[in-house]
Amino acid sequence: MEQTLEIIDKVNTPEDVKKLNVSEMNKLAEEIRYYILKKVNTTGGHLGPNLGMVEATIALHYVFNSPVDKIVFDVSHQCYPHKFLTGRKEGFTNPDKYYTYTGYTAPEESEHDWFKIGHTATSVSLATGLAKARDLKGGKENIVAVIGDGSLSGGEAYEGLNNAAVLGSNIIIVVNDNDMSIAENHGGLYQNLKLLRETKGQAECNFFKSLGFDYYYIEEGHDIEKLIALFKQVKDSNHPVVIHMHTIKGKGLYAAEHDKEHYHWILPGELDEGYTPASPAEDYGSITASFIENKVKEDSSVIAISPATPGVSGFSPEFRKKIGANYTDVGIAEEHAVAFASGIAKNGGKPVLAMMSSFVQRTYDQLSQDLALNNNPATLLIFWGGISGADATHLTGFDIPLISNIPNIVYLAPACKEEYLSMLDWSVEQNEHPVAIRVPSGAVVSCGTKDDTDYSVLNKYKLEESGSKVAILGLGTFLGLGRELKTLLNKNFGINATLINPRFITGLDIEMLEGLKKDHSIVVTLEDGVLDGGFGEKISRFYGSSDMKVLNYGAKKEFTDRIPLEQLYERYRLTPDLIAEDIKACL
Amino acid sequence: MEQTLEIIDKVNTPEDVKKLNVSEMNKLAEEIRYYILKKVNTTGGHLGPNLGMVEATIALHYVFNSPVDKIVFDVSHQCYPHKFLTGRKEGFTNPDKYYTYTGYTAPEESEHDWFKIGHTATSVSLATGLAKARDLKGGKENIVAVIGDGSLSGGEAYEGLNNAAVLGSNIIIVVNDNDMSIAENHGGLYQNLKLLRETKGQAECNFFKSLGFDYYYIEEGHDIEKLIALFKQVKDSNHPVVIHMHTIKGKGLYAAEHDKEHYHWILPGELDEGYTPASPAEDYGSITASFIENKVKEDSSVIAISPATPGVSGFSPEFRKKIGANYTDVGIAEEHAVAFASGIAKNGGKPVLAMMSSFVQRTYDQLSQDLALNNNPATLLIFWGGISGADATHLTGFDIPLISNIPNIVYLAPACKEEYLSMLDWSVEQNEHPVAIRVPSGAVVSCGTKDDTDYSVLNKYKLEESGSKVAILGLGTFLGLGRELKTLLNKNFGINATLINPRFITGLDIEMLEGLKKDHSIVVTLEDGVLDGGFGEKISRFYGSSDMKVLNYGAKKEFTDRIPLEQLYERYRLTPDLIAEDIKACL
Repeated sequence: MEQTLEIIDKVNTPEDVKKLNVSEMNKLAEEIRYYILKKVNTTGGHLGPNLGMVEATIALHYVFNSPVDKIVFDVSHQCYPHKFLTGRKEGFTNPDKYYTYTGYTAPEESEHDWFKIGHTATSVSLATGLAKARDLKGGKENIVAVIGDGSLSGGEAYEGLNNAAVLGSNIIIVVNDNDMSIAENHGGLYQNLKLLRETKGQAECNFFKSLGFDYYYIEEGHDIEKLIALFKQVKDSNHPVVIHMHTIKGKGLYAAEHDKEHYHWILPGELDEGYTPASPAEDYGSITASFIENKVKEDSSVIAISPATPGVSGFSPEFRKKIGANYTDVGIAEEHAVAFASGIAKNGGKPVLAMMSSFVQRTYDQLSQDLALNNNPATLLIFWGGISGADATHLTGFDIPLISNIPNIVYLAPACKEEYLSMLDWSVEQNEHPVAIRVPSGAVVSCGTKDDTDYSVLNKYKLEESGSKVAILGLGTFLGLGRELKTLLNKNFGINATLINPRFITGLDIEMLEGLKKDHSIVVTLEDGVLDGGFGEKISRFYGSSDMKVLNYGAKKEFTDRIPLEQLYERYRLTPDLIAEDIKACL
Repeated sequence: MEQTLEIIDKVNTPEDVKKLNVSEMNKLAEEIRYYILKKVNTTGGHLGPNLGMVEATIALHYVFNSPVDKIVFDVSHQCYPHKFLTGRKEGFTNPDKYYTYTGYTAPEESEHDWFKIGHTATSVSLATGLAKARDLKGGKENIVAVIGDGSLSGGEAYEGLNNAAVLGSNIIIVVNDNDMSIAENHGGLYQNLKLLRETKGQAECNFFKSLGFDYYYIEEGHDIEKLIALFKQVKDSNHPVVIHMHTIKGKGLYAAEHDKEHYHWILPGELDEGYTPASPAEDYGSITASFIENKVKEDSSVIAISPATPGVSGFSPEFRKKIGANYTDVGIAEEHAVAFASGIAKNGGKPVLAMMSSFVQRTYDQLSQDLALNNNPATLLIFWGGISGADATHLTGFDIPLISNIPNIVYLAPACKEEYLSMLDWSVEQNEHPVAIRVPSGAVVSCGTKDDTDYSVLNKYKLEESGSKVAILGLGTFLGLGRELKTLLNKNFGINATLINPRFITGLDIEMLEGLKKDHSIVVTLEDGVLDGGFGEKISRFYGSSDMKVLNYGAKKEFTDRIPLEQLYERYRLTPDLIAEDIKACL
């Protein structure tokens, strides 16, 4: 049955929320929940986190005076109800505007949003900054951070809490405890949260109190009246406060309440009766999981690790169950994950740590100090690396500059399934280097034959096809683009270009590159990521003192926001036609 | 009076410690303390942390069976007593061997060292990895992490504790609580540690217990007998344990016990009677502090921030006292520091966050997500950036690749004091960009005249001297090297080279670079840092399709370890002679 817009029709700003009575607010919650379900079932998106925050968001806007009072949402994937109440409801109620607003807070959309946020565990530190500036300027507004229990495993959240606690003035941290991360929670803290839930916040042993916070527990995280009463109580507090609020992730949708991991984020159409999302026969996640499953059977010291994103790397609930103690989810704690993997490798274990490109950003110093400096043979799998049409908060094009300029790490770019498996096997079995592999994205590509390269001979590029005049270095999955370019050059200009599959991101094949000088005048590099600090620039540097012309292709150094991939390729001249044009001009 | 070597003479391995009685161990402590003082007063080094760990280290090696049992030291700047007991005592007792061993743990020195460690907060995660590998392999040894209270403010330590707590098997975390970081501690946690010290560990509200640890308190952190009793009690524990041990930083040296911040690390000769370390009239730290002090007088929204390293940036105790609430030390919490600064800037404050190059590595994702993506106008000061002869754990040559490949950040390289002050003033007053400034290192250099450049016009390089044939881009402090090179080229080859001061690390002055094509055939870039992912490679990329030859000079991508700077310059051909040779060969 179609839901009415009875109350939501009247709400355009937080001021309008304050005019409602409790029964109207409950009706508003119903309407919001209905339209979230409808929209997310059309576009895909975060479901569970938003369903869980409907009542609390209404209560927050009833009590606090946004935007004078400032609310910061951690990860901000639970901000849909907030968008309903801050002038953006049409993004949910009007299908024509489903794509108008981002799924995260965005200051350019609304004065009620303070930061672009998509990574976890940042809200408390950001809010503490807002509060400190308020204090310096003599302001009096409330600063509120809303952070989920899952985010509390991240080091930045702890650093923020430890500092917020001694701010000496108003800051209100609402801990939205639904007893879930994306998957289940991991870490000692969660036993304390459980104890606090079970004792209705009365247990003396209290993580938040140990950090010095004034602490309030509310069991009824979906009871607007009780939420309002508590928020009123702490409003204008002159000291740091934690509200520990118990909510139900996926609240209001039976399926989401009962399979919280699956319904954290859904694909378009998943809520339709009988709908089964198309599942490819295999993808790079399932290939990875199968590989590890088999390895574990041979060698009990092999261990798969995920920082709370097992879905990214094919570590399904079945896989996790099957390999048992040979799998560790460390929670949202990427820094720990890298140091942990280094420690395992040092003591003779074989760790395989899988991370999404966007989140490996959280580990630069651990990659450098804990891992690379110690030269421990851990394997890191970097998933989804590449130029992408994603939100600005989740871009995946920066991992090459990030990882490849750290000494000692061998960063590999397989171009197909067979190379990936061969590299993976080599990496797990060797004892010399920390190795990162940029797992290909998208549909599984086969090279046709098994790859039996000995990767212990570092920085040996693969000559795919020998030619002259122009040499194309197609890195990783861009080998395909290189192949298309080669075909086009042949067809349009009669150039028989050389095609090279570098495989090694972190080193130069000096012999091969020197050899090209003999009968090539142009080298073209193709990489699926930002050019600045990347692979191509190293080739340019190598040829700097020679007559070789070098053309580097990849992304510009910029934050893009939900720009379709084809547009980005056009913008960066990453199509065979455009590159061929440039080559022609350079010949 | 010269100390004897009565006991230490008998101790070559931890096995020898086990043969001593308590009174001999106390004598051993006396001897170790004496030789630490003597050696550090000659070479300089970490004093307070080592004096505080003498008894505990003896007790650890008495009870545990290193290297089967594995001990990991956080930061490892307190590992001197451990080195005495693990075959490296001559590094302290024999002046000829003062420089034989590093000041940190180093696996290549001893089987009793597990990791190269120099950054904080990493030990618990590394130790958890050792323990996990042990469990996978069916081992039974003890894994011990020793971590100071100061390091507990770091997010990685918390991530590690949160995960260690649920390991389900043996891990022993010794928290060495001396109530100090390098400077005083900051954060809510420290009130809990104080409460626990005051109640002898009996308070119910307990940070470690809240994370799920079995917790033991020991007040007498310098009482070998009591330490041994407690370590024996927890040895072979089948679950995670925290020992909260109260020690005195600088124990045994009156001056160090009473000025803990100053004696954390001392210069050679500081303990000699009447010795006053030479203090330059001004350095870039004092220049920075003066600037901020004056700014704060004009504008109360200006705030200086340090992540527990105020000495690095000239934020002396006097300075901190003078500006009061306009200074925040966030503890060892670099991630929080960046997000905090971003939040302050967003709410109209003017944050100036000072960090050492080596530690800015801990903040890549915060620089990218919390700061750059949000484009908030915070000012970051990167101190000590450059190629250095430091320990491998504290290298400072990676900040350019780290920072400069992130969109939106303007990274500036002043070549002298006047440029630095002009950039700093512009950065604090502007509202458009996150700005990082690579503060020059070493002696203060003057450009002679006040710099009144308008830095809001981005990526405008400064033409220092116009010439032809060869153009030299001397970045930041390497402008001096560029000037020497220019002189030499003129003298030896009669080349009147162009000299350019790029100032902007993060962007190209396309107009100027295009203009060089007219009457130059070689561009030389000079940067004080690793070449890979750095400034020079961007220049090489720019000229890739042209006839311009480009020679990039900087450091090789490698971890170096206490190699004198002159040797490194030679290795990287960073001398006017060697560069001139290369230019000649290229002409």
